[in-house]
Amino acid sequence: MSKLLLDYGSGGKASHRLIKDIFVKHLSNPYLDKLDDAAFLDNIKAPLAMSTDSYTVDPIIFPGGDIGSLAVHGTVNDVAMLGAKPRFLSCGFILEEGLEIELLERIVSSMAQAAKHAEVFIVTGDTKVVPKGAVDKIFINTTGIGEVLVNPAPAGNRAKVGDIIIVSGTIGDHGLTILSKQKGISFDTEIKSDSAALNLIIEKLLKEIPEIHVLRDPTRGGLATTLNEIAKQSNVECFIEEDFIPIREEVKGGCSFLGLDPLYLANEGKFIVILPEKYQDKVLDILREDPLTQEARVIGLVKDEHPGKVVLKTGLGGQRLLDMLEGEQLPRIC
Amino acid sequence: MSKLLLDYGSGGKASHRLIKDIFVKHLSNPYLDKLDDAAFLDNIKAPLAMSTDSYTVDPIIFPGGDIGSLAVHGTVNDVAMLGAKPRFLSCGFILEEGLEIELLERIVSSMAQAAKHAEVFIVTGDTKVVPKGAVDKIFINTTGIGEVLVNPAPAGNRAKVGDIIIVSGTIGDHGLTILSKQKGISFDTEIKSDSAALNLIIEKLLKEIPEIHVLRDPTRGGLATTLNEIAKQSNVECFIEEDFIPIREEVKGGCSFLGLDPLYLANEGKFIVILPEKYQDKVLDILREDPLTQEARVIGLVKDEHPGKVVLKTGLGGQRLLDMLEGEQLPRIC
Repeated sequence: MSKLLLDYGSGGKASHRLIKDIFVKHLSNPYLDKLDDAAFLDNIKAPLAMSTDSYTVDPIIFPGGDIGSLAVHGTVNDVAMLGAKPRFLSCGFILEEGLEIELLERIVSSMAQAAKHAEVFIVTGDTKVVPKGAVDKIFINTTGIGEVLVNPAPAGNRAKVGDIIIVSGTIGDHGLTILSKQKGISFDTEIKSDSAALNLIIEKLLKEIPEIHVLRDPTRGGLATTLNEIAKQSNVECFIEEDFIPIREEVKGGCSFLGLDPLYLANEGKFIVILPEKYQDKVLDILREDPLTQEARVIGLVKDEHPGKVVLKTGLGGQRLLDMLEGEQLPRIC
Repeated sequence: MSKLLLDYGSGGKASHRLIKDIFVKHLSNPYLDKLDDAAFLDNIKAPLAMSTDSYTVDPIIFPGGDIGSLAVHGTVNDVAMLGAKPRFLSCGFILEEGLEIELLERIVSSMAQAAKHAEVFIVTGDTKVVPKGAVDKIFINTTGIGEVLVNPAPAGNRAKVGDIIIVSGTIGDHGLTILSKQKGISFDTEIKSDSAALNLIIEKLLKEIPEIHVLRDPTRGGLATTLNEIAKQSNVECFIEEDFIPIREEVKGGCSFLGLDPLYLANEGKFIVILPEKYQDKVLDILREDPLTQEARVIGLVKDEHPGKVVLKTGLGGQRLLDMLEGEQLPRIC
């Protein structure tokens, strides 16, 4: 099997072959194919949303996805969370000398499929090959830009007292999948990552309900950390009920076995919506029509009692403060 | 000295402290400070140029710059080469567990200075911390967007027979600096990287001469490789004269000592301009007024004899084909 040499990152002939044989082959589109230093993007209108993420997930292929699809989904979702329609992505590869070219091609092909499905173009890229040992196999950065669809845009500081808090589906799936793979543990029922592009359902939602206050995807740090960020940014209390939070039985079981709290596990295909209560039926109707969000649930509401805090009503009826993640549950989860 | 722990990349409390104490402290601006998943950019107009680059340079601090300033200059320059005014950058850090926080702060502060000098804002970012050994110290991705200033935009496929080829200053400085540091060699006269933001001089140039056909910065692969790309994209011959190419004496000496060809060495603060001959005096007048480009020279012209090729007239009067870089002279040069 053919392996990646340092030459492939030189900017010279080998680089050009790699670009042609792998990147352009799979990602081809009128913007990328020009191969200038920068992509020329004509039909896009401000206000824009711009977001970046570097992906270092280990393992690079996991149940439900791989580093390539994750790199597209993650950035597409971050752009969408500003109430925007993602349009264009850049991608930067850092590759380890000796990487199997077949594996690289599999990852790039997976990015291409994810981009097609999310209706975005990968328009410009960069490839560095570093000596063996200077990076672990493959890291990918993607940066996305999109058109903001509503004014004002949803933002972390717009949660209002009385708003309801909705989560679009089950939580903890991605985090537990990666962790169990890292630890070499398998469960009876295979769990898999929820990695998915959320932009199309977000676009539908904003079209019907432009008055959404907050959209946020609970990735690193999980639901608990993301709600803490929102509570702080908006200076409100996020009050949620444990029994309302959708979690798969197998994720509950796995977390219990490994001593993990699913509220702190990363998700890669879920989002939080905070909006006025009057839209409750409408938003749930829209979400439940889409397979990606059919398990959406109201999990709580925005209060003014403990500004900057997240309060959890437990299954037993007690209440406790739910803090941000302190310390690292899990490195290289995305 | 305090060191980076995996916690700092968790998305939790430690991440938030790192973002506040280092990134926001140095890079603060109204776009970044909102700390949403994506930055909201209102005053920017299409057509846009978008470019991305990952920086893995080794050593991370070198004469004339560091990985932080290089990451700003490199992407700002790539956006500018499409005839655009760079406006906004994202930055993604991949950091090795155990990295000295003081060193990280030095790099971030250097990025802040470079961004200020280039009149761009770093508007959104991402930080991953990976376990010791999974990355060599620090890699940075920057992605930039800017407004294209002229129509049609300069592009690699627009070189026309009869155009002149100009290089904005001496070549080989960056590549030789990095290589000599990697090999632990020092020269009598210290050479240093030419790393610099070229966007302000490019903007000035385009204002006076909108009819520039090609702008390109000869980074990886050097002048020879970049001219080969242009020759292929435009299906023309690039004919250049060795004696006209500005190269510092100390770079010539270092290259001769190390058996390197300066025409293939990376530059990080130089550009190639290709435009109609009638603008020769005007373009040189503008370039020579700016300290960054005062050694600009016409080095050749665009011909139709050998389409897709670069022909070098040597100092001895002979002519030879100058091919693209084949193989790797130098890994981790940017």
